[in-house]
Amino acid sequence: MKIALAQINQTVGDFQKNAEKICSYIDCAKSQNADLVVFPELAVTGYPPKDFLDIPAFIDENLKALNEITRHVTGISAIVGFVDRNERRHGKLVHNAAAFIQGQKIISVHHKSLLPTYDVFDECRYFEPAYIISPVKFMDYTLGISICEDIWNDEEFWPRPLYETDPIENLISHGANVIINVSSSPFAVEKQDKIRLRMLIHDAMKYKVPFIYVNQVGGNDDLVFDGNSLVINAQGKLIAQAAAFEEDLMVVDMENPAVQIQPRAYSPIETIHMALIAGLRDYVTKCGFKEVVIGLSGGIDSAVTAALAVESLGRKNVIGVLMPSQFSSQGSIDDAVTLSQNLGITYKIIPINDAFETYRKTLQTEFKGTSFGIAEENLQARIRSNILMSLSNKYRYLVLTTGNKSELAVGYCTLYGDMSGGLALISDVPKTMVYELARHINRKKEIIPQNSIIKPPSAELRPNQFDQDSLPPYDVLDSILKAYVEDVRGIDEIIRMGFEEKIVREIIRKVNRNEYKRRQAAPGIKVTSKAFGSGRRMPIAHNFMCS
Amino acid sequence: MKIALAQINQTVGDFQKNAEKICSYIDCAKSQNADLVVFPELAVTGYPPKDFLDIPAFIDENLKALNEITRHVTGISAIVGFVDRNERRHGKLVHNAAAFIQGQKIISVHHKSLLPTYDVFDECRYFEPAYIISPVKFMDYTLGISICEDIWNDEEFWPRPLYETDPIENLISHGANVIINVSSSPFAVEKQDKIRLRMLIHDAMKYKVPFIYVNQVGGNDDLVFDGNSLVINAQGKLIAQAAAFEEDLMVVDMENPAVQIQPRAYSPIETIHMALIAGLRDYVTKCGFKEVVIGLSGGIDSAVTAALAVESLGRKNVIGVLMPSQFSSQGSIDDAVTLSQNLGITYKIIPINDAFETYRKTLQTEFKGTSFGIAEENLQARIRSNILMSLSNKYRYLVLTTGNKSELAVGYCTLYGDMSGGLALISDVPKTMVYELARHINRKKEIIPQNSIIKPPSAELRPNQFDQDSLPPYDVLDSILKAYVEDVRGIDEIIRMGFEEKIVREIIRKVNRNEYKRRQAAPGIKVTSKAFGSGRRMPIAHNFMCS
Repeated sequence: MKIALAQINQTVGDFQKNAEKICSYIDCAKSQNADLVVFPELAVTGYPPKDFLDIPAFIDENLKALNEITRHVTGISAIVGFVDRNERRHGKLVHNAAAFIQGQKIISVHHKSLLPTYDVFDECRYFEPAYIISPVKFMDYTLGISICEDIWNDEEFWPRPLYETDPIENLISHGANVIINVSSSPFAVEKQDKIRLRMLIHDAMKYKVPFIYVNQVGGNDDLVFDGNSLVINAQGKLIAQAAAFEEDLMVVDMENPAVQIQPRAYSPIETIHMALIAGLRDYVTKCGFKEVVIGLSGGIDSAVTAALAVESLGRKNVIGVLMPSQFSSQGSIDDAVTLSQNLGITYKIIPINDAFETYRKTLQTEFKGTSFGIAEENLQARIRSNILMSLSNKYRYLVLTTGNKSELAVGYCTLYGDMSGGLALISDVPKTMVYELARHINRKKEIIPQNSIIKPPSAELRPNQFDQDSLPPYDVLDSILKAYVEDVRGIDEIIRMGFEEKIVREIIRKVNRNEYKRRQAAPGIKVTSKAFGSGRRMPIAHNFMCS
Repeated sequence: MKIALAQINQTVGDFQKNAEKICSYIDCAKSQNADLVVFPELAVTGYPPKDFLDIPAFIDENLKALNEITRHVTGISAIVGFVDRNERRHGKLVHNAAAFIQGQKIISVHHKSLLPTYDVFDECRYFEPAYIISPVKFMDYTLGISICEDIWNDEEFWPRPLYETDPIENLISHGANVIINVSSSPFAVEKQDKIRLRMLIHDAMKYKVPFIYVNQVGGNDDLVFDGNSLVINAQGKLIAQAAAFEEDLMVVDMENPAVQIQPRAYSPIETIHMALIAGLRDYVTKCGFKEVVIGLSGGIDSAVTAALAVESLGRKNVIGVLMPSQFSSQGSIDDAVTLSQNLGITYKIIPINDAFETYRKTLQTEFKGTSFGIAEENLQARIRSNILMSLSNKYRYLVLTTGNKSELAVGYCTLYGDMSGGLALISDVPKTMVYELARHINRKKEIIPQNSIIKPPSAELRPNQFDQDSLPPYDVLDSILKAYVEDVRGIDEIIRMGFEEKIVREIIRKVNRNEYKRRQAAPGIKVTSKAFGSGRRMPIAHNFMCS
């Protein structure tokens, strides 16, 4: 059996293009003499379709597209992810499904058993789980067709399985001698190496059957799918691995398999770098934009954002805007200019002093007797936002927000100010990791001016302001944030890790109090195990650990 | 058996205050000789606690609070909603639970069976369903203790039940002769009269047992719980109904019940009015604010928002700000002044012309050769946002956004402009309903100037601009929006309702294309069956019905 893993990048709800792409991959697999071509989870609709799944017309169009694809399947067999109707008289209206197609006919339909409903996943919201699981005969094999989460519940691999049943065990006990898994498994740093690959090797060795793992690739809103589709043989050896963060068609002969290969060794920062570039490219193009505009402060966050944008979209599609105020240092302006020149992007200088002074006059009566404070600081950030949004409205640029995860966590950012934009590219990248990214971007030559990396970070919204006036050092902050936000540890536990109680309480209080800002934040690209956004849903009005 | 229905308003995560309130209601029920006092779903934590449920410290504090409450239960019995640990070795870590407490001891714990995971509900994200359901003896009764959704699956009442099992049927078959339901059931217009009451009457008649329904009251973020706790006797007659949108302790003697009563007859607009007032009050106070600031344009949306705010918070806590530009008509300014005077609120006039002209100069080079357009229009809205946010930052006012649901649906609003604020009070109120609200507010005397109600709506961002230049008449728009957003009907179906195809397609395209704005919108108060926000989750990057 020659099996083709079709690792494709779909757009949610673009049924025509999605079907065309699937058909063209079918053709391509045929031309390489594959017997079977396998597409990712929900390949027809794109993943995640979210509440479009509630719209009957969306389900209809997906079925129409599947029919069109089915008619295209001749001289090869195909497994295609789609949304199936639930024909029973109770339960959710649809199943997350995979069709096994042969000779222009759907031979069998396989429903997902385990429906992830945690973090960014909402599958119980939409799907009814499988009622029946059964393998299907193909050539000399009995294929166990499973969908994403179905392989994520092995009770030997996981210390505490989330579900009572294990569909893989079930498929094997019904005679499956190859497990095929169609996935849309989003990227998080180290997930591929430390979890997915290890788990698949474990499972292949446990059951002594090959595992064919086909993952989606590309970005959809906050999620980036890393591809990295795999074939593990019955001895638990990795024998094929598709591209990371790129479409790929990988054909593997199961009778004459390649020898064992080493998994591609990317460092964590390399994978984050690739994820951000892929996520940005797809967000911009799938939203119908071409160019992005970025406010350049001379600081490291905007520099990293701009450098990533240039790698992702090309320098011609990136516009930098310097918006100095009376509090901007000449050094910062110089750094932003140098960066723009290093990147070869167009940059504009639009000072905000006049607008700021006009507002101060406009508000003179209201602000009488008060001193320069947070209102005046935020105003500067908001003027900059207005300028960027004006350019966006005038020229259809997408504004990229430049804030990092550490700021967003503690609310060290201005709502409707520096938080404004269509995509907050590095909003899941903690500040310490922003520095790592900067060094990685500079690995061959200096793109981000060294000065932006080494100078003490400052918002430059009043004289002599530095981040560390109001925040602990970023390595401390980021360690506490990781413990609280990503690892969900309690205050006591974090204190026992060696941090000062007062600092820990203050940080957690800030995180809990600033949910209102994050609720109105632009979407970001998830790169860690727990990003703010759709995967972390917190009340705004509450009183938990706020004092 | 004298049973007390304790319809209380909790704050999420405020364990000390929540426990104190529960204890004080226990005392109060005792003083009225109640044998049993029943509290709403998750009374200990507040509902919905969302992802705080993932934090072990949150679960611990909830159990500590339950212990404290348990020690307080003497001379009466109590049923108290809390979060219980799941002791099994698989599945979600917690159960949505109710403790039956007697003599300072937890006699039994009852877990929720049916976990709503649709619209605003995410319960499969957190909770493991009940493994066992069993009733409990109390005095001469066998109590069937159920939690919210558990009563919402009767296969005779619902055309298509969502779940395979019916816990009420199960409890009855195990001997329950009273059904107690502890709920946190959010308000939506007509839900109480048209669904909840009818369903409870149906169920009581079907099983010939009384139903005791205890609902939470008050606002938590976008959700308002309407209370309206009920007792239905075994003949299916309503014999007691607690207050709407207010805390209440209602004691009912099940042996000497009151005669049948009529349900309180509120009109839909009256209930929406109450919901908005309650929701605003709780959002402001639970977020720790006191005063709100509102931009007054002279139009109907800001007038209704201000009038509701005055009813909710008192006129001293509402500040109006008029921000006229060169495009503001004298009529609009006059209307806003009259409104402020009618409401007796402080109002300020802060013209935006200077700021607008300064921006135009600042952007002169960039905008050279372009004509006045959407960028210039949005800029005005954003200047107003900057002014309101500056006042908010300076004086700790919460900014109320004034946009309605129709605008938000089609994107007829400015991101970081009129969309800015802590709460978008009427963002789930369609424009036609805003008019109804205005007339309702004016029912006794003219509060909202008649002129604001009758003049053609205009954003006044350029000369002679009217909403109807770019949108169909609001009655048409709202009907199409209701069909698409609330009733999830397809294009063909909506066209068959009698609307022009071109208009239907254009509206749906706008709704689908403007998700990016709504993603960054302030939370609103849900009053319809489907609000934008946490109950409607759509992709931003997609291509479904966008052309």
